[in-house]
Amino acid sequence: MTPMMAAAAAQRDDGNAAPIAELITTYHELNSSLIEELSEEPSPLEFMRYVARNTPFVVRGGARDWQATKTWDVQYLTHFLRDHQVNVAVTPLGNADAPTLDKRGNTVFAKPHEEDQSFPEFIEYLTKQETDPNFQGSEIRYAQTQNDNLRHEYRALFSQVQRSVPFARIALQQDPDAINLWIGNSRSVTALHRDNYENIYVQVRGRKHFVLLPPLCQPCVNEQPLRPAHYARQGDGGGGDDDETLELVMEEDADDVPFATWDPDNDEVNTTKYSHLASPMRVTLEPGDMFYLPAMWYHKVSQSCSEEGVCVAVNYWYDMEFSGPLYPLVSFVRGINSVPEKPKA
Amino acid sequence: MTPMMAAAAAQRDDGNAAPIAELITTYHELNSSLIEELSEEPSPLEFMRYVARNTPFVVRGGARDWQATKTWDVQYLTHFLRDHQVNVAVTPLGNADAPTLDKRGNTVFAKPHEEDQSFPEFIEYLTKQETDPNFQGSEIRYAQTQNDNLRHEYRALFSQVQRSVPFARIALQQDPDAINLWIGNSRSVTALHRDNYENIYVQVRGRKHFVLLPPLCQPCVNEQPLRPAHYARQGDGGGGDDDETLELVMEEDADDVPFATWDPDNDEVNTTKYSHLASPMRVTLEPGDMFYLPAMWYHKVSQSCSEEGVCVAVNYWYDMEFSGPLYPLVSFVRGINSVPEKPKA
Repeated sequence: MTPMMAAAAAQRDDGNAAPIAELITTYHELNSSLIEELSEEPSPLEFMRYVARNTPFVVRGGARDWQATKTWDVQYLTHFLRDHQVNVAVTPLGNADAPTLDKRGNTVFAKPHEEDQSFPEFIEYLTKQETDPNFQGSEIRYAQTQNDNLRHEYRALFSQVQRSVPFARIALQQDPDAINLWIGNSRSVTALHRDNYENIYVQVRGRKHFVLLPPLCQPCVNEQPLRPAHYARQGDGGGGDDDETLELVMEEDADDVPFATWDPDNDEVNTTKYSHLASPMRVTLEPGDMFYLPAMWYHKVSQSCSEEGVCVAVNYWYDMEFSGPLYPLVSFVRGINSVPEKPKA
Repeated sequence: MTPMMAAAAAQRDDGNAAPIAELITTYHELNSSLIEELSEEPSPLEFMRYVARNTPFVVRGGARDWQATKTWDVQYLTHFLRDHQVNVAVTPLGNADAPTLDKRGNTVFAKPHEEDQSFPEFIEYLTKQETDPNFQGSEIRYAQTQNDNLRHEYRALFSQVQRSVPFARIALQQDPDAINLWIGNSRSVTALHRDNYENIYVQVRGRKHFVLLPPLCQPCVNEQPLRPAHYARQGDGGGGDDDETLELVMEEDADDVPFATWDPDNDEVNTTKYSHLASPMRVTLEPGDMFYLPAMWYHKVSQSCSEEGVCVAVNYWYDMEFSGPLYPLVSFVRGINSVPEKPKA
């Protein structure tokens, strides 16, 4: 079915379907589905043109000379953080902050169990799970606190990255609101979601695989209000780690979390009538690459490990611009998409 | 009625009314209704920030040193163009390209009669009509061809303005698609409309009064498909200008022109249920001022004359960016606003 046929089919369903389908198809007609690749950092003015177009790009090797890129191997990090306790997200499936089927068959929003672990123990678990075929481990661990952790929990490492990304700092006239360090392995996947931030992503070790949708594809992602739950360790009373399993605990008093339930990598299920109109963009970041993820873009992120068995990245969140027309218009798409359909004639 | 009350009232009417009202009120909550005033030209990067936010600004005195600003008085122009024939738009009411009631009481889209006139005769008519209380003249004249006239019809004058506006040329990486000269008097008003161009407006003589609405206020302006018509001189057969009147001639084979019919200066008539949510911005350009009118902004323009009785301006049209989300989203607002309402329950 061509996009225009799809738009015509959608029109038969209800009054808003045709404009929504036309919005998505028009966008794709006017925009490439390939990520632009630069070979050096843009100037602030060049960067501002991408911000104005809300369009991603990757700078191949843009961070290859950073000290972090050069030095953060497993041995270095283990030694440097040998006395550190760090916050770790623990899940059974690598599904921190992800739509997940609970035991009753309901899709809930699963948050990880969080606990402090010694950094050497944490990174040994990650790497053995990835590289040792005889490794016994029933859970997935991911250091993924997105709370400016590189200027707090991991501040010992902060001098080895840039304090801000110069082209972004100058163009956006601000310092980052948060700088986050991510350390995980290939078992963790970040589910499709979006953030109200301009995001500069720097790959340090291993690779990240992004699947991307522009903000106006909201009608494609099947956003649903999900009941929140979190994993908790449930012991059998006998003591010891081996006796424990991770069970989902519903957060009864918490509000529902509106969250995308369509997965572009499994695109035949949880569809909306617009999902097939989306043209997901894909990009893989290699070590030393720098990536601009514009504000409000949907992104799903999976990981491949370095030979040592880790994936390490740093990202810079800059406040997005809420004035101007983009934020109200993107909210409008969501509002229109949630208007109940007309009863069929 | 507050905006939120209005939004609630609109919600009772049909499913799309609430999101449309929320779009307009959210935009106004996040954006000032005052035009930003700069005292010197922005850098290309500073300009690009305004383009990214699709937000207008005025540079007071930004063109005060241009040769045009210094030299284009009536005597100079009359002498310089003494042998030139120029295209003149002629209307009975100063209503070139404007919604107009025809004799049957229908609102049509009235285009001017166009004819070539000697420049000295044209400008003498303009200035006498403005300054001579005994002037006998039943029509309104306006040199307003928007076809790059300053590089063609008026190219003799072109060396006296900038070939391009440097901050815009550098930021937008292009030369202007069109540079237009406008010469008229206070009798002409340009009706509320929008253009798919980034527009830099330079006031040379007299003053221009802009009334502005952002693109997402489309639901406020009561766009209607108007039958096109043009004025034509109708003689009584006796010869001589005094025997002629301007009559509207319908263009029977032409397509309807979709055009705004709400006038923010007469805001109680031709309203939509959203018109009262608009917060029109107003700015008056003084001689030597430079104004950025962002792409797709609605603008109504009236004029005041210099002591000599003319209003002279130059504008630079740069192609707008059609990639990125803004153009599809603004089109989407129009599409949603044209979806028929649900029947009332």
